[in-house]
Amino acid sequence: MNKTATAIAQASMADYADYIARLTDRARKAAKTMAHASHDARNQALLHAADAILAQQKAILDANTEDIQASTKRGMNKVMLDRLALTDARITAIADSLRAIAAQPDPLGKTLAQWTAPSGFHISRVSVAIGVLGVIFEARPNVTCDAGGLAIKSGNAVILRGGSDSIRTSSLLAGIMGEALAAANLPQDAVTMVETTDRAMVRAMLEATGGIDVIIPRGGHSLVAEVQANARVPVFSHLDGICHAYIHAAADLDRALNIIVNAKMRRLSICGALETLLVDKAVLTSHFPKIAEALREAGCELRGDPAIVKACPWVTPAKPSDYGHEFLDAILAVKAVSGVEEAITHINHYGSGHTDAIITEDTATAERFLQEVDSAIVMVNASTQFADGGEFGMGAEIGIATGRIHARGPVGADQLTCYKYM
Amino acid sequence: MNKTATAIAQASMADYADYIARLTDRARKAAKTMAHASHDARNQALLHAADAILAQQKAILDANTEDIQASTKRGMNKVMLDRLALTDARITAIADSLRAIAAQPDPLGKTLAQWTAPSGFHISRVSVAIGVLGVIFEARPNVTCDAGGLAIKSGNAVILRGGSDSIRTSSLLAGIMGEALAAANLPQDAVTMVETTDRAMVRAMLEATGGIDVIIPRGGHSLVAEVQANARVPVFSHLDGICHAYIHAAADLDRALNIIVNAKMRRLSICGALETLLVDKAVLTSHFPKIAEALREAGCELRGDPAIVKACPWVTPAKPSDYGHEFLDAILAVKAVSGVEEAITHINHYGSGHTDAIITEDTATAERFLQEVDSAIVMVNASTQFADGGEFGMGAEIGIATGRIHARGPVGADQLTCYKYM
Repeated sequence: MNKTATAIAQASMADYADYIARLTDRARKAAKTMAHASHDARNQALLHAADAILAQQKAILDANTEDIQASTKRGMNKVMLDRLALTDARITAIADSLRAIAAQPDPLGKTLAQWTAPSGFHISRVSVAIGVLGVIFEARPNVTCDAGGLAIKSGNAVILRGGSDSIRTSSLLAGIMGEALAAANLPQDAVTMVETTDRAMVRAMLEATGGIDVIIPRGGHSLVAEVQANARVPVFSHLDGICHAYIHAAADLDRALNIIVNAKMRRLSICGALETLLVDKAVLTSHFPKIAEALREAGCELRGDPAIVKACPWVTPAKPSDYGHEFLDAILAVKAVSGVEEAITHINHYGSGHTDAIITEDTATAERFLQEVDSAIVMVNASTQFADGGEFGMGAEIGIATGRIHARGPVGADQLTCYKYM
Repeated sequence: MNKTATAIAQASMADYADYIARLTDRARKAAKTMAHASHDARNQALLHAADAILAQQKAILDANTEDIQASTKRGMNKVMLDRLALTDARITAIADSLRAIAAQPDPLGKTLAQWTAPSGFHISRVSVAIGVLGVIFEARPNVTCDAGGLAIKSGNAVILRGGSDSIRTSSLLAGIMGEALAAANLPQDAVTMVETTDRAMVRAMLEATGGIDVIIPRGGHSLVAEVQANARVPVFSHLDGICHAYIHAAADLDRALNIIVNAKMRRLSICGALETLLVDKAVLTSHFPKIAEALREAGCELRGDPAIVKACPWVTPAKPSDYGHEFLDAILAVKAVSGVEEAITHINHYGSGHTDAIITEDTATAERFLQEVDSAIVMVNASTQFADGGEFGMGAEIGIATGRIHARGPVGADQLTCYKYM
């Protein structure tokens, strides 16, 4: 880059930083009010937003149609178009989710711990809001309402940066959230949207230490990788969802079959989808062929190691790179293991620390698996697709975190708080 | 910098990164063992270390004398020399602190929450170790044992990088911690020390994402500022301790006097020392002159605004820059305020979010102050010097965090854990 180009690039980075600084100043002011707003007022804003979304259903669908047409013209693929598209049912689901968030208990002002210090002082640790959240997302317009709703519930302000594909839909939804805040006498700036979809704006948000307290990326691998590599602001995120299930020697066959088919095939493109199946050699002939058959009938390709192929000759031989790979497709890597120890070692080596499950009727082995698998969510006799804030009963989530600082697993309203000592 | 110098600098940055990568690999392996080590084994290591420190008292004092001689030759000032110096009493305090940590309850395996999900699954959130901590410190050699002890207790591994001033003392202490781990059949690498005191090594640690899970700086303003500005790894820290006390209209005079003198004068150089006193105009003539007199007798210089100087003509007029300033010395800024609202606004504007106190007998005003002052620790009728993990009954602390992510306030063993869902 020559000197002039560098100067221009620097000037424009400074412009982006200025723009974000103005936005974060407004958000910070709003956050101060939100942190002390009553639970009732915060819930009123959520219910107003749910009502308004249903009332403006037609306008939202129109904006979404425009987004879809523009994206189709740009050659967007079918999976992405499906993420972008809203329907009557999806709009109802957005409104329902806001109502579910409103129905949850207040995450603020909870006494997390209390004790009397050696000197006789009474100390309590009480949950308070974090401040200003930054949510960076791509196609899914519903993230606007999930993130906005959880921010309102937890007394924070949020700055949303949506992708260009869904900008018409998500701007309209963000505007509705702002109006709902105003209708509840809360600051409209508690939910704001970055007006441009310029990628440099993402970079400016990532460097806005002091302005933004935490960044949550919602999107594909390349977005999350960019955020993780460049953020100066703390990040809650997961890069990959390489989920494993291990069928133990003491697994019940019917149970294993139902769980594995669900874990792989219910939805292929979500982060909780199963990517590698580990089969205990003890049940390689008793259990595995029936499970493999059920997966094949459901349209799944299996790729196995030699022991697996020997048990089920129609299975495609696996390449080494199939293990630890996130297919997000109807493909499953399968490997025979000699026992729980090898299963745990494989998962801790190849997994992404997201969600892993054991299928067994043996309590001691289940307990060992729970203790030693080092993932955000470890399950016994459950489908990895169950790894979701809604399924967990948290109302909603902004995402699943695989980091080890602050939030791990589904990020709901409780995870968007910190605490202070009184 | 010319091309050759750049190349050399880059080569050596890569060398530092390689060195840290080798250290973090070993620490990561140790962390995996520590995470599942029994509470008894972890406590045994702490007690072995306490015994060994007392047994090797003479060798420790000898190493410390060498550090002091070298630092004196380099012209170190008295405050820093005092931080560096160990005495018999200080060595006993280090051993006592390790025993106190051992006596605390296990921070691992605690069920933080549990519930049944809508689908009938039982979910629990259980505390687990974070992994690899990086602690960067300067002169105080006792940080070696506080950080090492809390890491052992919380099932983590720690990489310590001490300053050149205390390197002989802290290397010896780190070696003792490693031997104590081995004596308890735990991995010696759970406490390791970076061998060089090169500042570039700090930079390599700050960029070791994936290798180090969290960095905790312990030292002066310039070290903490460097860490905060350059870390890619998450950081628990506080930059400044600009602590306030507000004497409310309903304050008891004797209580206020004792608390304020303690908060300012007990120890001048700690982060919980009082830096600004806010006095309600209602008690400007009844309370303030007596408190000012007591401070003067204790050797404290006061700097006040016109209303303060009017009430106590011997007080030095304050400059605007005296407010929000961390003196770490026998100097106190004083300001008259019209009530709790002005006090809260002043603190949230000029404070550093560390520790702030109100002196009052009025419960409603105290409650408002607790809610609205946005600091890690907010106190009623207590000295800001009480902001300390030991005083809080946490056994020990690695530091006080003013960030809003993960840990806020004193960072003890509980704050060095994260959780997983089972």
